[in-house]
Amino acid sequence: MSDGWRVGGGLNGGYQLSLLGNAMRAALPKHPDPVAVSAYYISPAEAGPVTAAVRPLRVGGRTATVAADLKQDDEIRLSVLATYGDLDSFPADDVRTTAEPIAMPPREECVPNTLAPDEVKQMAPFTQRFEMLFHPDEIGWAVGKPSGRGQITAWFRLADDREPDPLSLLMAVDALPPVTFDLGLMGWAPTVELSAHVRAKPAPGWLRLRHRTRNIAGGMFEEDCEVWDSTDRLVAQSRQLALLPR
Amino acid sequence: MSDGWRVGGGLNGGYQLSLLGNAMRAALPKHPDPVAVSAYYISPAEAGPVTAAVRPLRVGGRTATVAADLKQDDEIRLSVLATYGDLDSFPADDVRTTAEPIAMPPREECVPNTLAPDEVKQMAPFTQRFEMLFHPDEIGWAVGKPSGRGQITAWFRLADDREPDPLSLLMAVDALPPVTFDLGLMGWAPTVELSAHVRAKPAPGWLRLRHRTRNIAGGMFEEDCEVWDSTDRLVAQSRQLALLPR
Repeated sequence: MSDGWRVGGGLNGGYQLSLLGNAMRAALPKHPDPVAVSAYYISPAEAGPVTAAVRPLRVGGRTATVAADLKQDDEIRLSVLATYGDLDSFPADDVRTTAEPIAMPPREECVPNTLAPDEVKQMAPFTQRFEMLFHPDEIGWAVGKPSGRGQITAWFRLADDREPDPLSLLMAVDALPPVTFDLGLMGWAPTVELSAHVRAKPAPGWLRLRHRTRNIAGGMFEEDCEVWDSTDRLVAQSRQLALLPR
Repeated sequence: MSDGWRVGGGLNGGYQLSLLGNAMRAALPKHPDPVAVSAYYISPAEAGPVTAAVRPLRVGGRTATVAADLKQDDEIRLSVLATYGDLDSFPADDVRTTAEPIAMPPREECVPNTLAPDEVKQMAPFTQRFEMLFHPDEIGWAVGKPSGRGQITAWFRLADDREPDPLSLLMAVDALPPVTFDLGLMGWAPTVELSAHVRAKPAPGWLRLRHRTRNIAGGMFEEDCEVWDSTDRLVAQSRQLALLPR
């Protein structure tokens, strides 16, 4: 694992998940795509060698389910249950989605992550692995004026112009800053659990990501993410439970 | 496991989950309550003896994380990752929930599950383990007139008047009929994955449950559940990915 995906003292959780996702994919030749993935973060990961252990639980026709662990020095960093399938083989003519596509201003009116101060880029080199153009109404937290609504939305694409694929969505759902920034809580928000559903292969082009929270209580909050592709298809949904910054 | 929790050819998934949840609780003396639970359904369960295998991954101060399997005849029925904690020890004064409590008509204006035809009660004895009073605007599917909105809401309490507790919420989030009934799709909708967050101990009294779906595509749909208690506290949230009825 590379230090280039670090955020503060640890490696980004979505990065770890997509890496383990690739190992699960390698273990399932007929089921190449993540469909449902649930990740529990056990201990902080560091840059360096890593081992993936994948154990099939059920390999069927349409889907296969596995248990998998990401380990360093025999310590579990991340434990996962996941169902994989071949998204190309799923029915394509039954879309009845009522969710509304994320509405974003044109990209030239949004606030790019490249404007982040140098100390942020050094503290979190992860943020330079992609272009992220924030909705101008939801970036006030960067200058001490959070909206208080609990929502952060952005355009997103990988920095090396690689097109999005199902595995990269496992990283994308954890790429935005914690939605608690928009509530004025600027600290680190460790993930307890993150479950993601990949519902279609993303079309080439920019993605739109949105984080929202509606239930803050007991020192924790839920963070819902939607990922829409360039054809207005809802390609991934995720929910995580995270600890409120102290 | 008892036949009294059967729905058609299988035992209810939430019932299995709360049963395994009780075994996880027994393995974690200092962390009695489910906080985040992710369940992957591997094979159909039957009434009869069952074994729970629980493997701790990390036991910390605030939370503990385990992997667990429910097995019959050495076959895995249900594989789970879960984080447990002591809900009473979590901060109680930081509730900033913006989600709106489920609005329901008075119970006497709702449609009770006891009105179900005898053949439904025999096919699904599960439905007689609780009182469920449906919102009158969202029960049209029972008489061939689904609303088409993708939402089912109900009052809920256990049939034996036992008050709700955190473990029972793992069953409650899977107790409503599939939300696809409200879209006119009346068949069985097998769960691929269900993740639930228990955010507070429910107060005594009736619960309100709501199922919603917003993304139907590729032969699958997501089903979000909220559980509100008698004090207007959002005590549990869940999301499942399920297969559309054929």
